[in-house]
Amino acid sequence: MFPGEEPLPAGCSVAIVGLGLMGGSLAAALKQRCPSCRVLGSARRGEVLTEALARGWIDEALASAPEAVAQADLVVLALPVRSIVAQVAELAGWLQPGAVLTDIGSTKRAVLAAMDAVAAAPGCVGGHPMCGRERRGLAAGDARLYEGATWAVCGGRASAPQSVQRVAALARTVGARPLLIDAAKHDAVVAATSHLPYAVAAALARTVAHRVGDEELAALSAGGYRDTTRLAASSPEMMLDILATNRDEVLPLLRGMRDELGLLVSLLEGGSADDSALAAYMRQARSDRRLP
Amino acid sequence: MFPGEEPLPAGCSVAIVGLGLMGGSLAAALKQRCPSCRVLGSARRGEVLTEALARGWIDEALASAPEAVAQADLVVLALPVRSIVAQVAELAGWLQPGAVLTDIGSTKRAVLAAMDAVAAAPGCVGGHPMCGRERRGLAAGDARLYEGATWAVCGGRASAPQSVQRVAALARTVGARPLLIDAAKHDAVVAATSHLPYAVAAALARTVAHRVGDEELAALSAGGYRDTTRLAASSPEMMLDILATNRDEVLPLLRGMRDELGLLVSLLEGGSADDSALAAYMRQARSDRRLP
Repeated sequence: MFPGEEPLPAGCSVAIVGLGLMGGSLAAALKQRCPSCRVLGSARRGEVLTEALARGWIDEALASAPEAVAQADLVVLALPVRSIVAQVAELAGWLQPGAVLTDIGSTKRAVLAAMDAVAAAPGCVGGHPMCGRERRGLAAGDARLYEGATWAVCGGRASAPQSVQRVAALARTVGARPLLIDAAKHDAVVAATSHLPYAVAAALARTVAHRVGDEELAALSAGGYRDTTRLAASSPEMMLDILATNRDEVLPLLRGMRDELGLLVSLLEGGSADDSALAAYMRQARSDRRLP
Repeated sequence: MFPGEEPLPAGCSVAIVGLGLMGGSLAAALKQRCPSCRVLGSARRGEVLTEALARGWIDEALASAPEAVAQADLVVLALPVRSIVAQVAELAGWLQPGAVLTDIGSTKRAVLAAMDAVAAAPGCVGGHPMCGRERRGLAAGDARLYEGATWAVCGGRASAPQSVQRVAALARTVGARPLLIDAAKHDAVVAATSHLPYAVAAALARTVAHRVGDEELAALSAGGYRDTTRLAASSPEMMLDILATNRDEVLPLLRGMRDELGLLVSLLEGGSADDSALAAYMRQARSDRRLP
């Protein structure tokens, strides 16, 4: 997926800005898999910092993000996408010479546009580990969250090759597989594999709730409802940022999905005469579903 | 969920017509949990009967379904819904006095209409265990498939109370929870909790495949795509029968789903000015998703 096998060098200082599910899990994984790494944590809320220290997931807690950035060899912004975009310019100004700034936001074009615009652009690289959970916050953190996940690594126009390599090394260190990919390509593909499935799950949860009461749902639903609606439980705040920064890719897919449902409606309206067309629709759907 | 706690009486003869995933698993569960039960299996293909005997899941193999029915205290039709509907009239004619005929088809109105029309209607009761897998056939059978599942039990206009009790006892014997429910109510609820999620998963698998190549999908998809499309892997033959016999309930739901997607499209088209409406849509979806 990516040349090289090197993890982060021993003794590396990593600052993680934002200690929610993703940032907290990253800190936990780093402390577990790179004991010599020094992990600096920054978060707005003091109780989150206290908890991260108590769990041994960070070595040092810093209320001020610039202060954490100024001490690190590698900075990871673990915030919702639009917060990342809003903070890149300020925080990149605090990077030490040779230090690298990356992020783990779910869309990449908006982040890269912000990174391309700063003086420290050679040290800036976008990233997106393809993993997550519906539960939020540090308390849901898990040192194994990144194991086996693809970690998209998106260089900007000015990113230095050694900066890109350092982000790939971070991914390897926590058990993920770095994949070098263009930011625009990344956003187009995850619109289909992640953002559209979220939108569909949300619309399905709403449609079912309009028609079926709680008791009926509890009595007569099985794994199909549970799995097909799972993504509807995602954080609305996180998803709002994702949809806002990937609107142009998601919209045509949503329209395509609406058309696929419209086709199914017309096949069903056709009645039994259309059995063969309906069967062909379903066989195609089964073969279209491809798993890695 | 249902009065009574009795399992099937010891020494009960159960004929299972159809030994696919559901019928095979039922046979396996009966032999495991009611060793004194005599299980008669009927299937069109000789090699399926041979395999069921070899696994010890049936005591006797009968190529002829009527012959199996004529020997049983309880007959279970484990076939696709429209095959059940087509065979009820003939097979009910072979029932012994006092014997009970039931089915495990996924929709119930069409089956009950066929059961109501036969002379042996007092011995006929519809059933639908709420469990399944995407894999098909006897080889995918599992004696634990029914454990913990709700088993809908739908009496017909003429069903005798003791017939209904015997089907409930069958459900309890294999570890399921019988739920007495009207056939029309059943079909309306499962249209929303099962058939609509299938249709949505199928349309999603097709939409994604139109836009994303295999390699991209393999590299950049995670659990969200896998779970949201899972039902698209269901048997097209089984789903065709389900949609054909529940069309009037599924169609309004599909149109409602199309409208929910249309609302989401218009919110996204509105751009950032509509952030609060988009956030409200997503928060509602999250609270609308309810699990038992």
